[in-house]
Amino acid sequence: MSVVQAASSLQLCRIMRPDDANIVGNVHGGTILKMIEEAGCIVGTRHCNTQDGDRCMAALVRVEKTEFLFPVFIGEVAHVTAEITYTSTHSLEVQVQVMSENILTGVKKLANKAALWYVPCSLKNVDKIMDVPPIKYASADQEELGRKRYGAQKMERQETKARIEDVVPPPPNPGQHTVGFSQSSLIHLVGPSDCTIHNYVHGGVTMKLMDEVAGIVAARHCRTNIVTASVEAINFHRKIIKGCVVTVTGRLTFASNKSMEIEVFVDASSLMEAGKEKYRAVSAFFTYISLDKANKALPVPPLKIDGEEEKRRFEEGNARYLQSKAKRLAEKERQE
Amino acid sequence: MSVVQAASSLQLCRIMRPDDANIVGNVHGGTILKMIEEAGCIVGTRHCNTQDGDRCMAALVRVEKTEFLFPVFIGEVAHVTAEITYTSTHSLEVQVQVMSENILTGVKKLANKAALWYVPCSLKNVDKIMDVPPIKYASADQEELGRKRYGAQKMERQETKARIEDVVPPPPNPGQHTVGFSQSSLIHLVGPSDCTIHNYVHGGVTMKLMDEVAGIVAARHCRTNIVTASVEAINFHRKIIKGCVVTVTGRLTFASNKSMEIEVFVDASSLMEAGKEKYRAVSAFFTYISLDKANKALPVPPLKIDGEEEKRRFEEGNARYLQSKAKRLAEKERQE
Amino acid sequence: MSVVQAASSLQLCRIMRPDDANIVGNVHGGTILKMIEEAGCIVGTRHCNTQDGDRCMAALVRVEKTEFLFPVFIGEVAHVTAEITYTSTHSLEVQVQVMSENILTGVKKLANKAALWYVPCSLKNVDKIMDVPPIKYASADQEELGRKRYGAQKMERQETKARIEDVVPPPPNPGQHTVGFSQSSLIHLVGPSDCTIHNYVHGGVTMKLMDEVAGIVAARHCRTNIVTASVEAINFHRKIIKGCVVTVTGRLTFASNKSMEIEVFVDASSLMEAGKEKYRAVSAFFTYISLDKANKALPVPPLKIDGEEEKRRFEEGNARYLQSKAKRLAEKERQE
Repeated sequence: MSVVQAASSLQLCRIMRPDDANIVGNVHGGTILKMIEEAGCIVGTRHCNTQDGDRCMAALVRVEKTEFLFPVFIGEVAHVTAEITYTSTHSLEVQVQVMSENILTGVKKLANKAALWYVPCSLKNVDKIMDVPPIKYASADQEELGRKRYGAQKMERQETKARIEDVVPPPPNPGQHTVGFSQSSLIHLVGPSDCTIHNYVHGGVTMKLMDEVAGIVAARHCRTNIVTASVEAINFHRKIIKGCVVTVTGRLTFASNKSMEIEVFVDASSLMEAGKEKYRAVSAFFTYISLDKANKALPVPPLKIDGEEEKRRFEEGNARYLQSKAKRLAEKERQE
Repeated sequence: MSVVQAASSLQLCRIMRPDDANIVGNVHGGTILKMIEEAGCIVGTRHCNTQDGDRCMAALVRVEKTEFLFPVFIGEVAHVTAEITYTSTHSLEVQVQVMSENILTGVKKLANKAALWYVPCSLKNVDKIMDVPPIKYASADQEELGRKRYGAQKMERQETKARIEDVVPPPPNPGQHTVGFSQSSLIHLVGPSDCTIHNYVHGGVTMKLMDEVAGIVAARHCRTNIVTASVEAINFHRKIIKGCVVTVTGRLTFASNKSMEIEVFVDASSLMEAGKEKYRAVSAFFTYISLDKANKALPVPPLKIDGEEEKRRFEEGNARYLQSKAKRLAEKERQE
Repeated sequence: MSVVQAASSLQLCRIMRPDDANIVGNVHGGTILKMIEEAGCIVGTRHCNTQDGDRCMAALVRVEKTEFLFPVFIGEVAHVTAEITYTSTHSLEVQVQVMSENILTGVKKLANKAALWYVPCSLKNVDKIMDVPPIKYASADQEELGRKRYGAQKMERQETKARIEDVVPPPPNPGQHTVGFSQSSLIHLVGPSDCTIHNYVHGGVTMKLMDEVAGIVAARHCRTNIVTASVEAINFHRKIIKGCVVTVTGRLTFASNKSMEIEVFVDASSLMEAGKEKYRAVSAFFTYISLDKANKALPVPPLKIDGEEEKRRFEEGNARYLQSKAKRLAEKERQE
């Protein structure tokens, strides 16, 4: 009995349970994101330790835009396949694919595809970034494509670093369908099970909390069964350590007639160290859609905009929406 | 208690999942108690670390009598708001409120109100109690009311210290509806997720285990859907450390025609240290009611009493029951 | 990116977390058993649904004797590989192998090998056992060996059915190192996360609870770091349904100078249905060893035996111990 598995790839799977899903049975996008990141972390950490020098952990720094192609349901088996697809001197890209399998009917569906970027941090000194051993490419073309993805994400990461801004508390008595009405926050005390062995929070745990808040915002706005449709690229600006309290806040930025865009902020603060200020660790845009009982898309109530700031964010959201739409159409045409 | 978030207040929320509830969908009282304590612990620990000196954790020493006003269901969002409402030299009071929100209908209900007392323990030496920085009160009246609550709980805590007694094993073949028939125990090996970062069990984890045992006792007695109606004041006599085994035992003390009172004991013992004996860490009285499918109260089978000890406990339970009833009536009249 | 995987085999893996292990960092035997059973259930259910007729779930009926060869630690990745190795008309055998991988050093070790027997139960009527589609064997020899294993386990399962007996409550004040001193019970309310989609408890969940109780018994007896060394064949006599309370009781039967044997019983009872009595669902023998800080075996305190029943059980345990030892020696000689 032997399933050969290369050092730079990995397969994991798990049955989806009631706690992984909402009350209608749709597995949360956050559950999927957490599994994807677990696979990426294993394959990345394993690869970076295939050389001499300090032992290290692969720390998640970025997830590329991710689309949820097919819903996964309770009782199905989610198969996650991860493979290292590019290495630079100090970072590596892992591409991950999630297949859902209904073991009663045998039907398999591609639920998700994602690309994650990791950097190896020394276990002795977490601020020291280690070198990444190079992988072998099947062709020069493949390497070249990887180099392009690397360059593109690097540029984007630098841009987004500046975009950090404060979350304004909602107005005291916001009307229905306004931004303030559905804005939501949760706090979570980081425990040992949330962490890697060097006591930093797994990126997947953070993404699961973000998806939970985004889901609450979406459900408050449209009061129906809602599911994650996609996530814009997420940059992990700062690490979060065990013993911190994280505050995760979500607010609507944009709504089309069939989708909602929710901006989610993750702020971390130490309970113990009064001097250390709260800091923005991650931020991202989640897109949700609303479904009826037959899993068909429902119309979304229009978002009531108030003030210059909300208007600006709405327009930026609209631009992202139009860009995504154009990209989807272009891909469809290419396939036909 | 307003939603603006000062250093001395906090809001957390979480969607209720299938594992938080019984098979009928009612969220366990223990789940609510655990959330309440998490909020209290964060706000208390944060406050006590806003000064120089050793870093410290807020350790739960007492929860005032708590009533479960409205049931919470799977899929609802529970909002927990915590605020520091009194500080003495070495302890602080946190008042917590739980609102349940049905995010599909928008209906919100006050599910629970609680008051918790914490003392700050140094992380360097857990037996050293730190000073608590004073809070500012909105008025002299508010401070005076807090001082009265502080005095009252202090007196009660001293009284209860003496009340510790052994739990007798049930008779070998107890008849139905006797005390021995429904008496139940569980053991739990304390794991990392149960603990604060200084390796002591969260008070909320202990309360959740206590509610679990009390619920099994109540269900064994009346074989219906049962829910937590209230909890008498709980005093945390001793701390429980990681690696301990806790034994949680519940037994019926009293039953009226619509409610059951269950006494719950928590004993802790180290698996490793032979010298250290088993000790009583906590004890409390839980009141349960029995519900039909429409969530209406059902009659409870009478409790069959055997021997002087059971009779004494029954009468004490009856006295608590009559006192609660009188208090509820007085409050009702005052409100009208 | 594709890792070919036959319908009759499966690989799953997971990082071991603090909650999977004891405070010294050894992953619980129960965590491993639960992963093994999840893999077996997926591969068995998938295989039995590759034909027409009612959809069905693979229900665990037996686990063969299992040895824990190497300890697994927090931070390591456990790889579980499962493959169907024999099919009879109404049952199938899954062989499972667990490799632990230290992703920092690259070291891999064989932690466990197990064989599980499943029967397919119709989802429409859980008492209806479905036919199992035959697998193809690599050789006639392989099929013949499988037939022998099938015959042997069938005989043993029929023998053990008769062995059900009551667990006697321990004496009120048992002395140290007696059977009564370390006897332990836990109760667990079966929740949705414990169950398959047809609301029956996963065999792996039951085994994890059994290992937890056995570990507490062993630690109470010798007050050191203890680990699961092996589990005798386990027969699952009856299914356990969602909403039941299970009582898991462990007691020492035998101790050699380096090992302890603990008998574990699982009794289930419905909280709701008064007519349905408590029933014995599973029983098994767990063997534990005691380890020092360097993971070397420590001597075990002798077990103080009292009465005819304890003496009989001790002698039976001793016979199993000698048989295992002889078998191990024979295998060692064969390998040299």
